[in-house]
Amino acid sequence: MCPPQTAAVVGTGTIGLGWIALFAARGLRVRVSSTHPAAPERVAAALGLYAASMPGGPVDVRDLIARLDFPPTVEDAVTGVDVVQETAPEDLALKQELFARIAAAAPAGALLFSSTSTLLPDDLGAAVDEPGRVIVAHPFNPPHIVPLVELVTSRGTKPEVVEAAADFYRWLGKTPITLRRPVPGFVANRLQAALLRESIHLVREGVVTVDELDDVVTSSIGSRWAVVGPFRALHLAGGPGGLRHWLSHLGGGLERTWAGLGQPPSDESVHALLIEQVDASFGRQPYEDLAARRDTEQNAVLAAIAAARAAGTGPADA
Amino acid sequence: MCPPQTAAVVGTGTIGLGWIALFAARGLRVRVSSTHPAAPERVAAALGLYAASMPGGPVDVRDLIARLDFPPTVEDAVTGVDVVQETAPEDLALKQELFARIAAAAPAGALLFSSTSTLLPDDLGAAVDEPGRVIVAHPFNPPHIVPLVELVTSRGTKPEVVEAAADFYRWLGKTPITLRRPVPGFVANRLQAALLRESIHLVREGVVTVDELDDVVTSSIGSRWAVVGPFRALHLAGGPGGLRHWLSHLGGGLERTWAGLGQPPSDESVHALLIEQVDASFGRQPYEDLAARRDTEQNAVLAAIAAARAAGTGPADA
Repeated sequence: MCPPQTAAVVGTGTIGLGWIALFAARGLRVRVSSTHPAAPERVAAALGLYAASMPGGPVDVRDLIARLDFPPTVEDAVTGVDVVQETAPEDLALKQELFARIAAAAPAGALLFSSTSTLLPDDLGAAVDEPGRVIVAHPFNPPHIVPLVELVTSRGTKPEVVEAAADFYRWLGKTPITLRRPVPGFVANRLQAALLRESIHLVREGVVTVDELDDVVTSSIGSRWAVVGPFRALHLAGGPGGLRHWLSHLGGGLERTWAGLGQPPSDESVHALLIEQVDASFGRQPYEDLAARRDTEQNAVLAAIAAARAAGTGPADA
Repeated sequence: MCPPQTAAVVGTGTIGLGWIALFAARGLRVRVSSTHPAAPERVAAALGLYAASMPGGPVDVRDLIARLDFPPTVEDAVTGVDVVQETAPEDLALKQELFARIAAAAPAGALLFSSTSTLLPDDLGAAVDEPGRVIVAHPFNPPHIVPLVELVTSRGTKPEVVEAAADFYRWLGKTPITLRRPVPGFVANRLQAALLRESIHLVREGVVTVDELDDVVTSSIGSRWAVVGPFRALHLAGGPGGLRHWLSHLGGGLERTWAGLGQPPSDESVHALLIEQVDASFGRQPYEDLAARRDTEQNAVLAAIAAARAAGTGPADA
């Protein structure tokens, strides 16, 4: 792949702003397509925050802003670009129309990505001449920090386009994972929802408060899953006998454990309970401070893992 | 609390060995009670591995071994100690008998802990004169690295004993969380089971392999939950409007998402699929190498978060 030079970002919501910051920090010329009347000012203000929390360390926001253009139309924004990242609201008809215009005006070889978290690529590309060009590239918020990009292709996506898509995100410093088939909610958000369901159940049952549950997670499974995923963790929990040993001894009990997990509602009374407990704890602290702290610490975690891997820890690294 | 001087660890399985290593590294005199005929040799061999992966950096295994005694009976082991940590097999009758003997021989003020992951303190203390003395102190494996200790008390546990228990684990450098009421499986393992269920579902459905699922987790929710738990993460996902905003916009959709999550069996065919995929990936690497790498990286993550917090990231730290 030739290094990309120019990208278009369509939309300037939270996700769009994250992509703009990351693309510009990586040296791309970024065409910003926004229906917002004060888009340049809005983007410049947001980039100040993003520039301070870049994974490799703070960057000069003026360097980022100098790489942006604000063309008047979507067609102008995508003309001649290598990559398009669409981040419009989650409205299928709107996105279908956008992709029809994007595909007609962008170069035939441009990669066309949607940041959608809920829509499937077959639907997004329905109004495009070559529907398989549209690929879901779903980031985890904030996109400039969290490594994951879930790639979801459609029936017609050519293998070389899938490969070019993954190459692009690796070039960007991300961790692209291509789903083998589409599933509503993709992978990370489904896993998150599963854990959240049991979390809400335990708070609702009065076993722990939201604050205590958060502390349980950060002091155990959180830092564990930062370094090994659930299957590798299970394999190691089996000792030298590995997953085989674990499943033969404890696998039978899994169904009983699962049957005992909670199925809380997500209704007014549950919401009120959660909000009350959050307000009583960290909920009154300024959003910007909490978010900045989260981002600083997550960058520190990712850097520490990268450093530990670079240093190596034995033959398994060979 | 006066600093503890002497602890007894009953049992020398994986969890017992972890406690022995941590207690000795913290300077405690450790009485090891084991029915294993070659317990001293077994413990010495295991401590070599644990000494290399101590959170604060490697320690000299000879210093650890010099702090151990191997009394002939449980009664001898617990006489005059400050703390007893029971790590016998998960057999209720066995543990009940052990705690009756322990409570009769240990000082009246000694803290009596069980490392059980499945039994409840009311049951464990059934044969003890003062049943409320028995407290579950459930670690996450390996106990010398993962900060969490879930404390589960019984109906009769005195408030000052709960407090002394939490003080002890904080002194040890752990993060004790006292459950407000007992629940089977406690908190961390229930959350882990919830995430594992959806993970197995997605692998079974062919959306991702075990390896890809692990990569999704480590590159997104893992490093996120290392620094903020699920509720703080949700609060921040709501932007400046916080959890209130998030729930009012997306809370209604949670039930639909939950209804779409998988309910896989845990049967022979699922086990075979998981084992086959693990074998094809990391499963053939030596256990010791994989475990050492996990522990090195988890220590690096915990140290990075501690350093980031010590450095402070703005007014929210005040």
